Amino acid sequence: MAKKKFVYLFKESDGKNKALFGGKGANLAEMTALGMPVPQGFTITTEACSQYYADGAKLSETIINEVFANLKKIEKEVGKKFGDSKNPFLVSVRSGAPVSMPGMMDTILNLGLNDVSVKALANLTENPRFAYDCYRRFIQMYSDVVIGLSKEHFEQVIDAKKKSKGIVLDTEFTAEDLKELIEDYKGFFFKSKGYEFPQDPKVQLVGAIEAVFRSWDNPRAISYRRMKNISSNCGTAVNVQSMVFGNMGPTSGTGVAFTRNPATGEKKLYGEYLMNAQGEDVVAGIRTPSSIDDLKKDNEEAYNQFVSIASKLENYFHDMQDMEFTIERGKLYMLQTRSGKRTAQAAINIAIDLVNEGLCTKEAAIMGIDPQQLDDLLHPTFDVKAISKAVALAEGLPASPGAASGKIAFSAEEAVERARAGESVILVRLETAAEDIEGMNAAKGILTARGGLTSHAAVVARGMGKCCVSGCKDLAIDMESRTATIAGNIFTDKDIISLDGASGKIYAGVIETVEPNITGNFQTIMSWANELRTLKVRANADTPHDAKVARSFGAEGIGLCRSEHMFFDEARIPVIREMIVSKTLEQRKIALDKLLIMQREDFIGIYNEMKGYPVTIRFLDPPLHEFLPKEREEIESLAKDMNISYEELQATVDQLHEANPMLGHRGCRLSVTFPEIAEMQTRAVIEAAIEVNKAGANVKAEIMIPLVGEVKELAFVKKTVVETAKKVMEEQGINVDYSVGTMIEVPRAALTAQEIALEAEFFSFGTNDLTQMTFGFSRDDADKYLSAYYKNKILEFDPFVRLDQVGVGSLIKLAVERGKAANPNLKLGICGEHGGDPSTVEFCNKVGLNYVSCSPFRVPIAIMAAAQAAVRSK
Amino acid sequence: MAKKKFVYLFKESDGKNKALFGGKGANLAEMTALGMPVPQGFTITTEACSQYYADGAKLSETIINEVFANLKKIEKEVGKKFGDSKNPFLVSVRSGAPVSMPGMMDTILNLGLNDVSVKALANLTENPRFAYDCYRRFIQMYSDVVIGLSKEHFEQVIDAKKKSKGIVLDTEFTAEDLKELIEDYKGFFFKSKGYEFPQDPKVQLVGAIEAVFRSWDNPRAISYRRMKNISSNCGTAVNVQSMVFGNMGPTSGTGVAFTRNPATGEKKLYGEYLMNAQGEDVVAGIRTPSSIDDLKKDNEEAYNQFVSIASKLENYFHDMQDMEFTIERGKLYMLQTRSGKRTAQAAINIAIDLVNEGLCTKEAAIMGIDPQQLDDLLHPTFDVKAISKAVALAEGLPASPGAASGKIAFSAEEAVERARAGESVILVRLETAAEDIEGMNAAKGILTARGGLTSHAAVVARGMGKCCVSGCKDLAIDMESRTATIAGNIFTDKDIISLDGASGKIYAGVIETVEPNITGNFQTIMSWANELRTLKVRANADTPHDAKVARSFGAEGIGLCRSEHMFFDEARIPVIREMIVSKTLEQRKIALDKLLIMQREDFIGIYNEMKGYPVTIRFLDPPLHEFLPKEREEIESLAKDMNISYEELQATVDQLHEANPMLGHRGCRLSVTFPEIAEMQTRAVIEAAIEVNKAGANVKAEIMIPLVGEVKELAFVKKTVVETAKKVMEEQGINVDYSVGTMIEVPRAALTAQEIALEAEFFSFGTNDLTQMTFGFSRDDADKYLSAYYKNKILEFDPFVRLDQVGVGSLIKLAVERGKAANPNLKLGICGEHGGDPSTVEFCNKVGLNYVSCSPFRVPIAIMAAAQAAVRSK
Repeated sequence: MAKKKFVYLFKESDGKNKALFGGKGANLAEMTALGMPVPQGFTITTEACSQYYADGAKLSETIINEVFANLKKIEKEVGKKFGDSKNPFLVSVRSGAPVSMPGMMDTILNLGLNDVSVKALANLTENPRFAYDCYRRFIQMYSDVVIGLSKEHFEQVIDAKKKSKGIVLDTEFTAEDLKELIEDYKGFFFKSKGYEFPQDPKVQLVGAIEAVFRSWDNPRAISYRRMKNISSNCGTAVNVQSMVFGNMGPTSGTGVAFTRNPATGEKKLYGEYLMNAQGEDVVAGIRTPSSIDDLKKDNEEAYNQFVSIASKLENYFHDMQDMEFTIERGKLYMLQTRSGKRTAQAAINIAIDLVNEGLCTKEAAIMGIDPQQLDDLLHPTFDVKAISKAVALAEGLPASPGAASGKIAFSAEEAVERARAGESVILVRLETAAEDIEGMNAAKGILTARGGLTSHAAVVARGMGKCCVSGCKDLAIDMESRTATIAGNIFTDKDIISLDGASGKIYAGVIETVEPNITGNFQTIMSWANELRTLKVRANADTPHDAKVARSFGAEGIGLCRSEHMFFDEARIPVIREMIVSKTLEQRKIALDKLLIMQREDFIGIYNEMKGYPVTIRFLDPPLHEFLPKEREEIESLAKDMNISYEELQATVDQLHEANPMLGHRGCRLSVTFPEIAEMQTRAVIEAAIEVNKAGANVKAEIMIPLVGEVKELAFVKKTVVETAKKVMEEQGINVDYSVGTMIEVPRAALTAQEIALEAEFFSFGTNDLTQMTFGFSRDDADKYLSAYYKNKILEFDPFVRLDQVGVGSLIKLAVERGKAANPNLKLGICGEHGGDPSTVEFCNKVGLNYVSCSPFRVPIAIMAAAQAAVRSK
Repeated sequence: MAKKKFVYLFKESDGKNKALFGGKGANLAEMTALGMPVPQGFTITTEACSQYYADGAKLSETIINEVFANLKKIEKEVGKKFGDSKNPFLVSVRSGAPVSMPGMMDTILNLGLNDVSVKALANLTENPRFAYDCYRRFIQMYSDVVIGLSKEHFEQVIDAKKKSKGIVLDTEFTAEDLKELIEDYKGFFFKSKGYEFPQDPKVQLVGAIEAVFRSWDNPRAISYRRMKNISSNCGTAVNVQSMVFGNMGPTSGTGVAFTRNPATGEKKLYGEYLMNAQGEDVVAGIRTPSSIDDLKKDNEEAYNQFVSIASKLENYFHDMQDMEFTIERGKLYMLQTRSGKRTAQAAINIAIDLVNEGLCTKEAAIMGIDPQQLDDLLHPTFDVKAISKAVALAEGLPASPGAASGKIAFSAEEAVERARAGESVILVRLETAAEDIEGMNAAKGILTARGGLTSHAAVVARGMGKCCVSGCKDLAIDMESRTATIAGNIFTDKDIISLDGASGKIYAGVIETVEPNITGNFQTIMSWANELRTLKVRANADTPHDAKVARSFGAEGIGLCRSEHMFFDEARIPVIREMIVSKTLEQRKIALDKLLIMQREDFIGIYNEMKGYPVTIRFLDPPLHEFLPKEREEIESLAKDMNISYEELQATVDQLHEANPMLGHRGCRLSVTFPEIAEMQTRAVIEAAIEVNKAGANVKAEIMIPLVGEVKELAFVKKTVVETAKKVMEEQGINVDYSVGTMIEVPRAALTAQEIALEAEFFSFGTNDLTQMTFGFSRDDADKYLSAYYKNKILEFDPFVRLDQVGVGSLIKLAVERGKAANPNLKLGICGEHGGDPSTVEFCNKVGLNYVSCSPFRVPIAIMAAAQAAVRSK
């Protein structure tokens, strides 16, 4: 076997291989190959990173030797030497992962400085102040990043020095002051560590490389990767690059620019720079940078060269670029280029412009869009100016995007009442439950103290497209005094708060919002996506209103209509409760007859909105106790309303209590024990369809039986459905196009798909429950241990948000194979929360599903992801 | 395709094909082929039964035509004709399933009688009373079984007739009385049904055949099949056979006999008969039957012929036979032969005798034993005489076999205290929980009002080999007055009750018990089983005592030692509670240090018993809240004991509360969040092993990590284990033979077995949890719907008792394949409740597991089942 090569000069690397060289390294190689002025250096590959971890978090001799061999080549090329007293070689050491993780990992600049080389630098630049400032910064950065001595210690040393010198700003230090400061730094270092600050540049370099590799696994990076769905396995590359200096005097400078405006997409170089400064000065904000256009005045030649490079880069990469450059004594150097981050609106505009300019194909333009980012375009947001001035009180989890302001309501009933009276309210709860749905719907936004990104509040709010911040640890609610305390500030029901569901931030008072501005370009790009994709996209919608929103966002049907969600309506819950406490079949049928009338109306409304697109109606799913109150007072009050004794109602509640309701008496198990429920629901589905068909429509009703684990369960319930449907159609003399299928959400259903497919006309993967049962994770309880799982890298992402393709996915694949083999006409879809997650959409496309279904507000995201999946699968 | 044949004459059928002809039909064919005197007839196959159901519970014309074609052949053969006025043909119509289901399905005798043929029968037999009695019985039986008019109605008609005639016994009716009675019967029939009792024998026959097929699915048969693990798919055959009469006068008779004594196995014809009687008279018990030996005096020829036939049949079938015969006017007819049911002891004795007599091989002898039945030999039972006189108060579920008498204890603590004081107590509870274990252990038996065959009480009791009756619906407990009401009778703690765990019956007062008598033959048969099997058998044992019992029953190791079961001990629970309420790592470590000492002692005890056999120790599994009380009073009292405030303890309890504890913070998730627990447990395992090894033993410790679903979970915990073990072994300078593996009980673990097998040295299938998660059935809640599932034939058996081979089994197969492919040295076992179920043992043998592990009291059953599986797989 050929020895593995771990270190490549920029001019040796393959600029297309980001997996090996990281994004930064690959692009440095590309710019080098394009003949652009890149300070030379080398990349240590991501394989070296894996090797570093395999060797117990240590750089092996092999890698170190390779590093120094390459270092020698670069030294020769630039004519400088590490630690040289005349012409010392200085480098930057930067991370560069295959997928960009800005700011998450470590960087060391000015490496190679020591007591000897600093003098040479002072002589060469004839700027001792600059040289000693560099050295001072280097000691501080190195001590922090490599050695673990926190910056604050050094800041204290600086403060002491300022005091003794009677000065206020760093810039007031003279070169002599800085020399003294360096001695103080070194003294502090020795005192803290018991050894001298490393003077050998080679020792410095090994330490720095190890530090960058180590930073791949810092908690910040781990949590960033989880948020952005980046695998933890790939590792980072390290780039060692000759230093160039933007702070070598008035003819030097440094800047950042985008080839187009990242906020709007406008085609115009956009950026800023500072003369006589280092990168960190631009960021620090002490001096105000100039617009990139002004560079023309400062250095026309460099400006023209930069404009030309920027244009070349964009043409080369077929995408808007984000570039860093430095001018050292009048000469331009390119430090980095990468695909620029942009707003959703800009992303769309740029994509369309690039195609129009002939710079890329529609496919490539679509691939350049982050589907997830489209979310920003689908909800109201805070006015940018207003929010930039606001200071957040506290932060919770960004559970559902959008922005909202309103007075606090402490209960769902209150929210409904006050909203009806015309108030804007924010529902503030410890957590929410099924019975709060109406209140959530009435509120402008929802804030909870408990619950994660997949808590009830979060899931329901996302479904409604309603802003929600969940799990705010700084929120305490006192129901007695009707106050909410947010990070120490007390609020009553008269006080207004504002929520930003995209950031999770909570503000006091009103903040202005702007409605989403869906321009023609958004329509255009969606139409391109629609042309490319083969996967259909449906929505999860329970009401005519949801159905309408779904259609307006491009949904091609309803993949999940939760028939029971309608039962939580204020007017209906008494009827369903009446059904639950019924002692005889006759009593139950009386209640069901009342529900029939209501359900039929709902379905009529939904069918009317869907205009012939298929509507999948899931039969009653939750355990019946979800419809009953839990607390004694509520039970007493309900018993009174229902005209039965407290004891009787309490007995019903007790009898319905379950140790593990998630695995209890629910789903099709209800239709087995109470076939009259399935009968009523079938009647509502078919009668409503007949009603709508009479007006000339062609309803496609898909009756979906939930929680099936055994084919005979489905066959049993299907028999009730088919017989009832037949009866209704005969009664009315009109036929309805309907089919019967099942959710695949119990592992056994997936495993026995070959049997179930013989009874089912379609499968819809209910990935929420399937994930719960496949992992054995209760969604309501997993918070207790998932943080430890993330911390220890046991899980890299929340399996309730992004489909676990290895485990749950293998079950889905198996079900698809077994199901299709038994019934080639089987229609396949997915209707869990995952349906709107881009990586899941790609998976669904790959395993051959016919459609995904997600909340209406995620339909455009799913469409975009489906288009990308189609392009990728070509 | 050749037309399917649905009806076969006895002389045409294949006596080896019980699947097609049923047991009875096949054996009638065999006897016919052996030239024995069998009343001729034909068998309607099990395929006809399937066809009957496929045709919507109706006999098709095809089948009816075939029946009558064969009927004609038999009529010709016997020279009689259906409904003939001279020589009428009469038949019996009997069910006969592939697997014997005695008494579960319907039978009709004397079919063919009508107003015409009854006179002919009277003339032919010169016995009008006999003829009219037959007709009277036929009308009654036919109306009941075929038409659905209950017997009681006819009994009322008889009573009225008796009264009018002034007689008491049926036998006092004259022929004329019976004629009148027949008219009354027919009148009643017409009044009830609106049409005449069918006179056409062909109509009678079709009705009877349909009734037998229909009876395959009566509730009694469904529940019998579930109990006996018989599939519902196979259907029953129907045998139509010429009638012969044992009640044709003093030279006629009928009887039943076994070729050996079914209670003891003694080799001696054993049976009884009655002259001038029909089969039902023998059963009715009005006349006392004679011993079969006396037949020699009544009819020596018939006796000799019967003895010779019996011996021929036993030799032919190589097994003890249970035969029915009739003597009609001196001539012997064989009506049936089948393998005789026998006691467990008899089964063993007969098996050994058959081998010794050269009648069958060891393999065949082993195959003839019902492994399940061995259970009877492993527990004390009620004295047969004493129990035959006792009348049960009520019946619960036969949760754990054995028999026990004792005074009632109402709580676990009370049971412990009073047992310590020397009393025999029966623990009587609404249901039991983990904290009751000590009380259950102290009691002689356990009775609960709630919970099924897999409830906590049932599972734990079976593990302890302790008698338990669960889910007794007639039991009410009033803790305040300290009384238990059983079917209306009130008992206090001074009253004695007796439980029969094998039947589920509850008695008042003491009933004498006998200890199991394990004779030399039992040993012999087990040694044969051990020679044959390849699958190893281990036991689930948590204490040295359990380990000892397991060894004495032949266990070859411990497959599951639940390390937490020791924590429920009275002396320990305070320490584990101390650990749970710890606020800091330090506090927790102090508590863990105390637990370490205790656990080490337990493991030393277990290792000592197991003498070098492997011991699999499962690390802490249940959610921590299981160790804390739930009721306010208990929490208050515990807080006092622990010297913390009620509020603090209540807060801990609340914080640990889970919505779905089965899917919550338990298993390896505890070791991820609290690695110090795994550290302590590893230390206990290894230190104990070193201690025992010092005395010259060679402990094989297998550390089993529960609830793994992702390989990184296992890798994480394994790291703690390996590092701790290394440390302990270095401290002591002694090495221990240990391995680390995992339970496969989460579906995802099975699906990703190829990854997990790279970290695990063994897999042990935890089929309890695997069944819960694969089906999505909570064991604690499934009672609510499972009865409806059985009733509607959605499930045929309890998947927590018998492994669901289709669904859960397919997951196990997948895990075995994927796991073995990745790690060919992987050791495979099963340790769920299913490990002792014979059909599951066969499955485990087939998919290639190395061992099964079950409760100590089921080890002989598993050994026997493993031997049978090995024979079958040859």
